[in-house]
Amino acid sequence: MHIYLDCIPCFIRQSLDAARLATKDVHIHEKVVRGVLGLANNLDLSKTPPVIGQKIHRRIRELTGLEDPYRVVKQRFNNAALKLYPKLRKLVVESEDPLETAVRLAIAGNIIDLGLKSQLQETELAETINQCLSGEPSGMQMEAFRSVLNETEDILYLADNAGEIVFDRLLIEQLPTEKITVAVKGSPVINDATMEDAILAGLPKIVEVIDNGSDAPGTILEICSQSFKDYFNKADLVIAKGQGNYETLSDMDKNIFFILKAKCPVIARNLGCEVGEMILRRS
Amino acid sequence: MHIYLDCIPCFIRQSLDAARLATKDVHIHEKVVRGVLGLANNLDLSKTPPVIGQKIHRRIRELTGLEDPYRVVKQRFNNAALKLYPKLRKLVVESEDPLETAVRLAIAGNIIDLGLKSQLQETELAETINQCLSGEPSGMQMEAFRSVLNETEDILYLADNAGEIVFDRLLIEQLPTEKITVAVKGSPVINDATMEDAILAGLPKIVEVIDNGSDAPGTILEICSQSFKDYFNKADLVIAKGQGNYETLSDMDKNIFFILKAKCPVIARNLGCEVGEMILRRS
Repeated sequence: MHIYLDCIPCFIRQSLDAARLATKDVHIHEKVVRGVLGLANNLDLSKTPPVIGQKIHRRIRELTGLEDPYRVVKQRFNNAALKLYPKLRKLVVESEDPLETAVRLAIAGNIIDLGLKSQLQETELAETINQCLSGEPSGMQMEAFRSVLNETEDILYLADNAGEIVFDRLLIEQLPTEKITVAVKGSPVINDATMEDAILAGLPKIVEVIDNGSDAPGTILEICSQSFKDYFNKADLVIAKGQGNYETLSDMDKNIFFILKAKCPVIARNLGCEVGEMILRRS
Repeated sequence: MHIYLDCIPCFIRQSLDAARLATKDVHIHEKVVRGVLGLANNLDLSKTPPVIGQKIHRRIRELTGLEDPYRVVKQRFNNAALKLYPKLRKLVVESEDPLETAVRLAIAGNIIDLGLKSQLQETELAETINQCLSGEPSGMQMEAFRSVLNETEDILYLADNAGEIVFDRLLIEQLPTEKITVAVKGSPVINDATMEDAILAGLPKIVEVIDNGSDAPGTILEICSQSFKDYFNKADLVIAKGQGNYETLSDMDKNIFFILKAKCPVIARNLGCEVGEMILRRS
């Protein structure tokens, strides 16, 4: 999915949010915003949004001198999700359709996207869980998803954000774990999950976990490590979680299932769905 | 009120909205956005938001070749307001406190601010009228306003938007009309009211109406006509309507009453009020 003009005000807003999260120094806030205005002005709109996202967040880390401005908030949402995990796992296991319930919860976890909403509160996470458990599943291709899991041998699960990765674990536990490799980001960007978050979520105990060698908030294949690209090419199914992975992989000729909550109007328009809708969709 | 960093994404969003209202040509949309990114990058944050607003909308008119991109939508809201006028006038006259009811309705009309929300619908106008008629008046200095009307001889009423100016008429009819001059913008910018709208609202029949000689979406005194400045300096009370006039006049040493609905978080923070609050406040 290419960059839309509507993404540009959102990039600026996101960079200001991120700068404020990183430091109280208003001069740095201004430098970040001016830097991003410069980047945006020279933008190639044929690229995907994470291409500029990567540049913006590199610039923020440079200007603030912080390697991981979202560290504290990532921990906060990892902790909130881990606290919910036992109750949600029980809910999945005891539900009539554990796979569907786990998909719904994985989608609910996708609300923990601080690129979109840096001020997210735990109460909104709780509300989103309830909405996703009872919501209309018209955007979810459950039967196609069930079939593809049986037909494929080598599944690459692209994780999205910290905290959310605990919700991914709920889903991964309902999948054929022996076929699955989970990939996280190579280094911090926004609140995207890295190896540290995967370990906190307990994933390496149940599946192989790798990183993609990149600090882009999505999966820009050209700049991922060769090792990750080998996994990607070998996989006969990719499960791509979240908006950033949708944005970067939606036009790729590959067997991909996207799982996300459509949280912004641009993504929703591109998907042909309503804002807020739960998406489980084959590419 | 100076420009806040939060205003910048809003400028970009507003320029894209305005470009889309003016033309379907996506190349022009992109040119407008890139032009505004350039303007924003060289921005002097000590200026008021209408200083850049004026530049943005000049650029949009230049690129689209349209002298007044909001012409159709201004007419739509003039018509909607004129249709409501007889009923609202009856409501004012028959109310227990006609002046307060008229102030509430003038504030309600301030929702017709297409810089903030280009897709405003008539239904939202109706909802806002109801909210303002019954809303909590803690942000309204009614008694101080009543007194100042008696104490002053020469009142300059700075109108804000088309459509809204019909709501201003409801208020002006409750003021000492012989003391009042109403000023509109010198030429079109966003949906700000010009002489054409004042005439449609029937204002010249009840008060003197002048224009300020400027195309800024607020009152930037330095660039207004000398004739307007004479009126402004002579007035012993200025009634300044809407966010643009608040932004440009809030730091001025003058007897001013601001009347507006605080529609954006930046203005609300500057005023120390909640978003959506009704404001009638002495400078």
